Amino acid sequence: MGATKAVVFDCDGTLLRSMDVWHAMESGLARRAGIRLDPQQVEQLNANTLSQTVAFFHDRYGVGKSRDELFADAFALLLAGYRERVAARAGASDLALALRSRGLLLAVASSSPRVFLEAGLERAGMLDLFDLVVSAEDEGASKRDPRFFLRLADRLGASPDAIWGIDDSVYAIRAMDEAGYSTVGIYDTDEAGTFEELRLAAHRAVREFAELPCEGLLRTVKETKVRRRSMESAESNVGILESNSFDMRRVDELDGTLRDLVERRKALGSCYRLFYQKPLHLVRGEGCRLFDADGTEYLDMYNNIPSMGHSNPYVTRAVTDQLQLINTHTRYVHENILDYAERLLKTLPDGIDRIMFMCSGSEANDLAVRCVQSYTGGEGIIVTAEAYHGNTALISGLSPSIGNEVAMSPTMRMIPTPDTYRLGTEDIGDWMCARIREQIADMRRHGIKFAGVLFDSIFSSDGVIPGKPGFLQPVVDLVHEEGGLYIADEVQPGFCRTGEAFWGFGRHGVTPDVVTMGKPMANGIACSAMAIREDVLDAFAKSAPYFNTFAGNPVAMAAAQAVLRYIEDFAMLDHVRVMGDRLLAAVRQLAGDHRCLGDVRGAGLFLGVDIVRPGTTEADRETAVKLIEVLRENRVLISLCGAYGNVLKIRPPLVFGEDDLWFFIEALDASLSAVEEG
Amino acid sequence: MGATKAVVFDCDGTLLRSMDVWHAMESGLARRAGIRLDPQQVEQLNANTLSQTVAFFHDRYGVGKSRDELFADAFALLLAGYRERVAARAGASDLALALRSRGLLLAVASSSPRVFLEAGLERAGMLDLFDLVVSAEDEGASKRDPRFFLRLADRLGASPDAIWGIDDSVYAIRAMDEAGYSTVGIYDTDEAGTFEELRLAAHRAVREFAELPCEGLLRTVKETKVRRRSMESAESNVGILESNSFDMRRVDELDGTLRDLVERRKALGSCYRLFYQKPLHLVRGEGCRLFDADGTEYLDMYNNIPSMGHSNPYVTRAVTDQLQLINTHTRYVHENILDYAERLLKTLPDGIDRIMFMCSGSEANDLAVRCVQSYTGGEGIIVTAEAYHGNTALISGLSPSIGNEVAMSPTMRMIPTPDTYRLGTEDIGDWMCARIREQIADMRRHGIKFAGVLFDSIFSSDGVIPGKPGFLQPVVDLVHEEGGLYIADEVQPGFCRTGEAFWGFGRHGVTPDVVTMGKPMANGIACSAMAIREDVLDAFAKSAPYFNTFAGNPVAMAAAQAVLRYIEDFAMLDHVRVMGDRLLAAVRQLAGDHRCLGDVRGAGLFLGVDIVRPGTTEADRETAVKLIEVLRENRVLISLCGAYGNVLKIRPPLVFGEDDLWFFIEALDASLSAVEEG
Repeated sequence: MGATKAVVFDCDGTLLRSMDVWHAMESGLARRAGIRLDPQQVEQLNANTLSQTVAFFHDRYGVGKSRDELFADAFALLLAGYRERVAARAGASDLALALRSRGLLLAVASSSPRVFLEAGLERAGMLDLFDLVVSAEDEGASKRDPRFFLRLADRLGASPDAIWGIDDSVYAIRAMDEAGYSTVGIYDTDEAGTFEELRLAAHRAVREFAELPCEGLLRTVKETKVRRRSMESAESNVGILESNSFDMRRVDELDGTLRDLVERRKALGSCYRLFYQKPLHLVRGEGCRLFDADGTEYLDMYNNIPSMGHSNPYVTRAVTDQLQLINTHTRYVHENILDYAERLLKTLPDGIDRIMFMCSGSEANDLAVRCVQSYTGGEGIIVTAEAYHGNTALISGLSPSIGNEVAMSPTMRMIPTPDTYRLGTEDIGDWMCARIREQIADMRRHGIKFAGVLFDSIFSSDGVIPGKPGFLQPVVDLVHEEGGLYIADEVQPGFCRTGEAFWGFGRHGVTPDVVTMGKPMANGIACSAMAIREDVLDAFAKSAPYFNTFAGNPVAMAAAQAVLRYIEDFAMLDHVRVMGDRLLAAVRQLAGDHRCLGDVRGAGLFLGVDIVRPGTTEADRETAVKLIEVLRENRVLISLCGAYGNVLKIRPPLVFGEDDLWFFIEALDASLSAVEEG
Repeated sequence: MGATKAVVFDCDGTLLRSMDVWHAMESGLARRAGIRLDPQQVEQLNANTLSQTVAFFHDRYGVGKSRDELFADAFALLLAGYRERVAARAGASDLALALRSRGLLLAVASSSPRVFLEAGLERAGMLDLFDLVVSAEDEGASKRDPRFFLRLADRLGASPDAIWGIDDSVYAIRAMDEAGYSTVGIYDTDEAGTFEELRLAAHRAVREFAELPCEGLLRTVKETKVRRRSMESAESNVGILESNSFDMRRVDELDGTLRDLVERRKALGSCYRLFYQKPLHLVRGEGCRLFDADGTEYLDMYNNIPSMGHSNPYVTRAVTDQLQLINTHTRYVHENILDYAERLLKTLPDGIDRIMFMCSGSEANDLAVRCVQSYTGGEGIIVTAEAYHGNTALISGLSPSIGNEVAMSPTMRMIPTPDTYRLGTEDIGDWMCARIREQIADMRRHGIKFAGVLFDSIFSSDGVIPGKPGFLQPVVDLVHEEGGLYIADEVQPGFCRTGEAFWGFGRHGVTPDVVTMGKPMANGIACSAMAIREDVLDAFAKSAPYFNTFAGNPVAMAAAQAVLRYIEDFAMLDHVRVMGDRLLAAVRQLAGDHRCLGDVRGAGLFLGVDIVRPGTTEADRETAVKLIEVLRENRVLISLCGAYGNVLKIRPPLVFGEDDLWFFIEALDASLSAVEEG
């Protein structure tokens, strides 16, 4: 990576939201021709240059005008539109300003006629920010041609490898890439391509400028071609649910019993995913160890559900005993739910004084969001760019990492992954506040009332990012100042996982308004909950009752109680802190020998390890995927997360012991060596 | 009840959607006065008569015109609107036509000037349907005055108790009620009041004409005053989750331990509900029997979750054994999920060839609806007016019986409860088809593409309505012809409940496109599923993966397998058919002695008993509520359902035996006698 000298922006769709102006021009010409465009024609015109559009109307509908006259009509309509109606894309101006303040040269390179560019940039108050505005159309050139960008580099007096190009068109990204630029694809819903195409073509792809901090553009990407190819060869979707999924088309490569079992999984349909290219058939578990059908022992470094250990005897006993007595629902009085509710509320901050039970974390988040919306009267929820909060219709729409093809809720907004590693600081409170302010402003612009934020305090699917304890304090203050509420999704960091406090948010000294929890709560028996301020719940409850058949039943509550007893009996919080510190130190020590371990971070028994190209901060998903497959051969089970799918998610059951620690470190050391060699 | 002679309709908001015309007039006047109305003023004007509106503009803004000139302006604006823009409310015309064809007299009684009425009805093609059009304004009368309606009865030559009045204003409903009319409140979102107010004021309340079949108006309600008072004294919300809820304000009336326990429930917040005015504290269960803390034994006639009996030993053993081995998730291969999936798919029709697992019926329906929407490209789902399908954000919006204050999805539509009893026939296929066609037409009108229907084949929360086997066949054919899919919600009727087939839809010989299931599936261990056509699932899966932490785990699957084994080992389907027939016959026999048992219907061990005013089909919720409280004293636990909250829902665990049958019949007989006496 070298220092960046210049940044080249596309205009339409990137700096400016100008698609409406073009549509208005097309409708204007159509109206004058006395015709109505059908949707297919509108789509076709979208891809046209101005000249092509004029030719279309002239050749088809004539209307007694020459092509030049028609061109003049179209030109006038467009110019008026650029002068009077276009708006800057959110965050574009701030980014340009920030880059300029760092001394970079800025250029605009567009296919539109220069006069439109200047009119539009002037209207958006951005014209002065650019050193150079170039129109490919005016120059008879094309943004599909790398030579156009090579010439532009010359004019900027910068080497192509010291230039970032930012564009919303895949073809322009490709041409810039060929020319040697580092590239950012910024997604524009008006463009024909998908986000995925952009992601594959560009070095970075973002949905909004908010995801593109100025700091990330100060150094370019040197190994352009190499990296892009490696991205293409990797899986195309690095959504949190994909990770190292088995490819069902390769079932024939498996042998014997395993192939039969995997074959039979077809009955489960095409949504399910298996881990590993050679899936595991696990039949027994104990503590942190798992055993497959042929007796091979594995160390589980991944599973956060049986946090008190696989086959925990406290839980088995509690469930068995209660099943022999009664297992009804919450419409009858039962001690188990009351004992548990009271005990759990004691672990929560004052003010969080009500608790309700569900079956899954998804259900808990689904209800939490509705409570927050009822209380605030708003709809707008902010999450991080790689968040995963669950699988219901509502919560899928608030879980960007579920996959690029899943429609997000129109009233949600994302802030970029709080990537402490690449932002270069652990103290990211101010940075997060700035990003949240931008998104709240954007909501306001769209008439969406801000309701709150839904954050996992360790940002698990964003790449396990503990950050500096306390950085969430100004964030929560801001959320409250803006009239929103803070939902702490504790499905991942709760129940002692982070070693510093019973709850993940405890590291930050903040008090959420709603706390959701699940996975480890009953060590694998379906059980989740929403703890909440009474007044927030009442805002929902006044209009809606809620009943959940299995939730809070005596058996689930007995299992959950057993988990709390185990936590106390074995002083798990201390255990996690001690073992977590030792695990972190040991992995950090390995990073000295293995330069692909780019960042090793963690809190308690929850570590994230950023796998990078040695000597850079550049994410290396290919190596990460190889590594976890080799680790499996070395009998360690682990997974990946993060925006680039390159972060080792180290998250063993909390009963993780001394022998587990050294088993893991040896296996990781050996696996890294194996990957590095070959 | 007597034969109906005449039906009196309100016009604005009832027959015609004319609110927009009035708004346009107000805006027109405001524009001419050079002012802009603020939202508060708009609201205020809504409640005004035309004269009051004119006075408002004249007195405040003058604009150099006399009041009469302003009136003329307003009048002209309104008349133009009625002539050119009003539309009939959906179904209004069909209902009027149907009533007319039965020989009833029809009248319109409105507060608007007659000239508007005639213009609007003419435009809507309805003017010819009415024998009389009366304007209270023209006559200097008021619809708030019962005497207006008494005079109208005279003019119609009908006794007030032979007249139905249909109106969207609570005040008019009250005046008609005072005059002795039977009343239907039809909800209009433009009216100030809530549906609940309408429901309390009127004998019947509906949201749309589709819920008001012509047959329901052929006989009037005689005991007007009595019934209305009883409605007012009953609980205001008879949503499915309310039924016989304990009133938390009465906690001080309980004694000792029970009061303490109920007090402690405050930690669970205000969404939870307890059954009974003296809640139950159950500590042990076996088969169909439950035992409270002081050892009192109860017969469970309500619980459909532990269908294989409370504390079923097959299930306890299966869960205990599996917990001692392993309990991971679906990303590893495990036999339990495969064995179970294959076994369960064998019970389903060919074509339903994929199955996925969730934790709750709500989650299953949430995913099913999204699959159907992905496959059809539509959004519009049709449910019945009292359906309950679950508690997620998406599914709450498709569950009208959850409560009147919960917002329904804007793209869903309801058909009326298929109330075989009051429709007078079990063979309701054609009736349902007609209702569905109306709703699909309404969707089309609103630009909503029809995606499918979500029906529980025994319509549990609508009042347990088995109907004639096969009546769903034409319904499913129609749904398919219209490009939609049929989701069979088998949470209630599945797993042998109806005695006639393993699945509830099996009674009808139909093949659903998606089948959802839950409650009895694993006898109380959280477990649910969606079985589906492969191509329908693929439409969803191509863009979205799906993972559900606890779902399909080895323990849940072991419990579910134990249920299937129990069903086979004890030939439960035969058992349910035999015991169901005997239970139905025994309850029917009681109906001879107890005339409040209006309709006794059922399939297998799922019976609905309509509690009515003796000699009528009029729902008697008050008696029903009393009855279940007395049954509790007689040690039988049971609940209520149906649109009027008056239907006994008889639904014991399927292990229901001979002794349970006679215990129940004796208790029911005694309880009915007690209620009748007191």
